[in-house]
Amino acid sequence: MSQYLNYAIQLAKMVEGQTGKNPPVGAVVVNDGRIVGIGAHLKKGDKHAEVQALDMAQEHAKGGTIYISLEPCTHFGSTPPCVNKIIDAGIETVIYAVKDTTLPSNGDEILQQAGIRVEFRHQPDAEELYKYFFITKRQSVPIVSVKVACSLDGKQATDAGKSKWITNKAVKKDVFQLRHQHDAVLTGSGTLNADNPQYTTRIEEGKNPIKVILANSGNLNFELDIFKNTNTPIWIYTQNEKLSSNIEQVKIIHLENCSIENIVKDLYQKGIGRLLVEAGPTITSEFLLSNYTNELVIYYAPKIIGGSGDYQFFHTDHIFDLSEVPQFEIVNSQMLEQNIKLELRKK
Amino acid sequence: MSQYLNYAIQLAKMVEGQTGKNPPVGAVVVNDGRIVGIGAHLKKGDKHAEVQALDMAQEHAKGGTIYISLEPCTHFGSTPPCVNKIIDAGIETVIYAVKDTTLPSNGDEILQQAGIRVEFRHQPDAEELYKYFFITKRQSVPIVSVKVACSLDGKQATDAGKSKWITNKAVKKDVFQLRHQHDAVLTGSGTLNADNPQYTTRIEEGKNPIKVILANSGNLNFELDIFKNTNTPIWIYTQNEKLSSNIEQVKIIHLENCSIENIVKDLYQKGIGRLLVEAGPTITSEFLLSNYTNELVIYYAPKIIGGSGDYQFFHTDHIFDLSEVPQFEIVNSQMLEQNIKLELRKK
Repeated sequence: MSQYLNYAIQLAKMVEGQTGKNPPVGAVVVNDGRIVGIGAHLKKGDKHAEVQALDMAQEHAKGGTIYISLEPCTHFGSTPPCVNKIIDAGIETVIYAVKDTTLPSNGDEILQQAGIRVEFRHQPDAEELYKYFFITKRQSVPIVSVKVACSLDGKQATDAGKSKWITNKAVKKDVFQLRHQHDAVLTGSGTLNADNPQYTTRIEEGKNPIKVILANSGNLNFELDIFKNTNTPIWIYTQNEKLSSNIEQVKIIHLENCSIENIVKDLYQKGIGRLLVEAGPTITSEFLLSNYTNELVIYYAPKIIGGSGDYQFFHTDHIFDLSEVPQFEIVNSQMLEQNIKLELRKK
Repeated sequence: MSQYLNYAIQLAKMVEGQTGKNPPVGAVVVNDGRIVGIGAHLKKGDKHAEVQALDMAQEHAKGGTIYISLEPCTHFGSTPPCVNKIIDAGIETVIYAVKDTTLPSNGDEILQQAGIRVEFRHQPDAEELYKYFFITKRQSVPIVSVKVACSLDGKQATDAGKSKWITNKAVKKDVFQLRHQHDAVLTGSGTLNADNPQYTTRIEEGKNPIKVILANSGNLNFELDIFKNTNTPIWIYTQNEKLSSNIEQVKIIHLENCSIENIVKDLYQKGIGRLLVEAGPTITSEFLLSNYTNELVIYYAPKIIGGSGDYQFFHTDHIFDLSEVPQFEIVNSQMLEQNIKLELRKK
C-alpha cells in the first residue's frame, strides 16, 4: 500500500471519536514526490479532510494526487461537496481507501467526467474504521460500545456490591482514552447511587463526553459527584414526568418508554455518533441483548471473585441455548500491565 | 546469553510434562566451537540430561563445556550423581541457568575441587520453568494447573447445563497439548456423568495422562466412555468403601476424607508431578480456593451466556472482600483463532 494512503488513514484514526455523527477522515495531498497538504475532519460541521488538505496545499495541489481514507462526498451537507473542491483545485489523481456506501451519488463518475483519474485502493484496516459508521448511519443510531471491567469469572462486583477497584490504574487510563473517543457515556442511576463515579476523561487535553443517565423511575440523588463537574452536559432519560433539576448543565429528557431503542435513536437525533455504555449488570445486559451494541470492550483483572451469580456482567432471565447465545468476534487483545483488554465486535 | 545455554533450556522445554516428579532438564556439550553432545531428561528413572549429553559426546567431552538448564545433581537418587559423571568425562567448564535449591549438597564446590570452572548464569525464562518444581517438591505435592473453558461472562455451561461446545477446535487442540504436558488429569464424577468426556490427548505421538476421578460418594456410571479406552490407568478417589470395579485399568483409592490436600499428597506419592484439573464449577472452585493451585489456564470463547449465576467457574459460599479475593499474575495471553487463552499464576 502507498505510504501516503497509510498516512491518510493514520490521520483519520487520530480524529476518531471527535467527529460526532460524521466519519473520521484523513487526507494527504502529494505533488512532485512530496506532501503539500494534510487534513483531517476535526468536527462535524467543520471542513472535511480533503478541503483542509487542499487549502493547505493551495496552488501546489494543481496536478497533484490526493490520498483520502474515505471516498470524497458528492453532496451539500453542512459543507459543499468535496468532489467540487477537488476538481476546482486542479487535482489529477484521487486515491481513496474505502467506498462510502451512504453517498447519494457516484463520486467516481463526477471526478472522471472532470478528467481526473480515480482509484479505489481497498484497505482492510481502513474498512474496519468505517464498518459501523455505514450501518448505524442508515439506522439513525450511534455506534454503541459497551465497556465492562470485571474479574476473570465475569463479575463486576462482589455479591456485597463492592467494585472499587477490580481493575488497575492502566485500565483507568485506557478508559479515559476510550471516553475521549466517544461523544457520550451512558450509565444508570443505580450505578451512580452505588459508586458515585464522575465519568471524566482525565487525559492531557482530553475531551469530556456528554454524560447520559438512565433513570427510568427518576430515583436520582443530585448531590452526587457527577453533578458537581458542571462543565459537561448531563442528559437524564426518565419516564418520571415529575423529575426536574435546576443544575445548569442538566437536561431532563422525558420519554414515555425509556427502551434502549428509543434512547439510542433520540441520542442520534441529538448529535451523538459514538456512545459508550459504562453501567452495571442490568443496563449492560440490556444493551448486550439489544440490536444496538456494536462493540464490547472487556477489561479483565487477574482475580476471581466468586460468591453467587450476582453482579455477573451478563445476566438474563431467559436461558439461551448455546446455539443462540450472543457471539462476538475478537478484534484485539492487549495486556495493560497485569490486566487484559479484549476488544470484541458483535457478530 | 549463550546460544548453547539457550539450546539447553529449549531442550528442557521439549520434555516438560514427561518427567513426572523430576524437573525437565536439557544439556548441551560443546568442544572446540561445535556441539558434541545433546541430552534431555526424558523420564523419571531414566538418565539425566547431562549423562545423555556426555554419553553422546564420548571422548569429545574431554576439555569441553557443558551447558545445563539446571544445576547438576550431587546425590544418588534413581541414578548416580551427575557431578561425578561430569568430572569423570573430563569436562573443563560447567555453565548452568538455574540453581537447584532442593539439592542436599553444594555441587559447585564438588566440581571446583575437581578443577572444573563453574558458572551459574542466571536465566529468567529458565527460572520460570522450575519455579513451582522447587516449591511443590518441598511440599510433596504435584504442580497443579486448573483449566477452565468458559464464555466471556465466566460460565462453563448454560443454566441448563449445556456446555458442548463453548470453545473452538483450536482450544480443543491446545487442551490436548496441555494434557500431554501433565502426568494426570483430574475431574469429578458430576462432570463425567453430565458430559461423558474421554480426556484423551489426540495429538500425534501424544502421551495420555493418567485419569483421576473424584467420586466422593461413589456415584459413578462405569458404562461411560472414559472407561472404554482402557489403555490409560484410571484412578478413582472415593469415600465410599463399597465402590469397586473389575475394569482392568481402574484402581479405586479409598480415602477417609477426599479433601484436595489429601488427594494431591497421595497423587504425589504415586508419582504424579504435574496435575491438570479439568472439572466443573464445584471442583474447580475447591481447587482455586485451596493452597494447591499453581497455575490457572482460561480459554475464553467470544460469547456471553447469561442466565443466572449457575455454572460460573468460580463459585463460593463465602463473599470475599475485594481485598481478599484470589489474585493471579498474567503470564501469557494468546489468540487461538477466535478464542483467547490466558495463562495465570496464583499469587
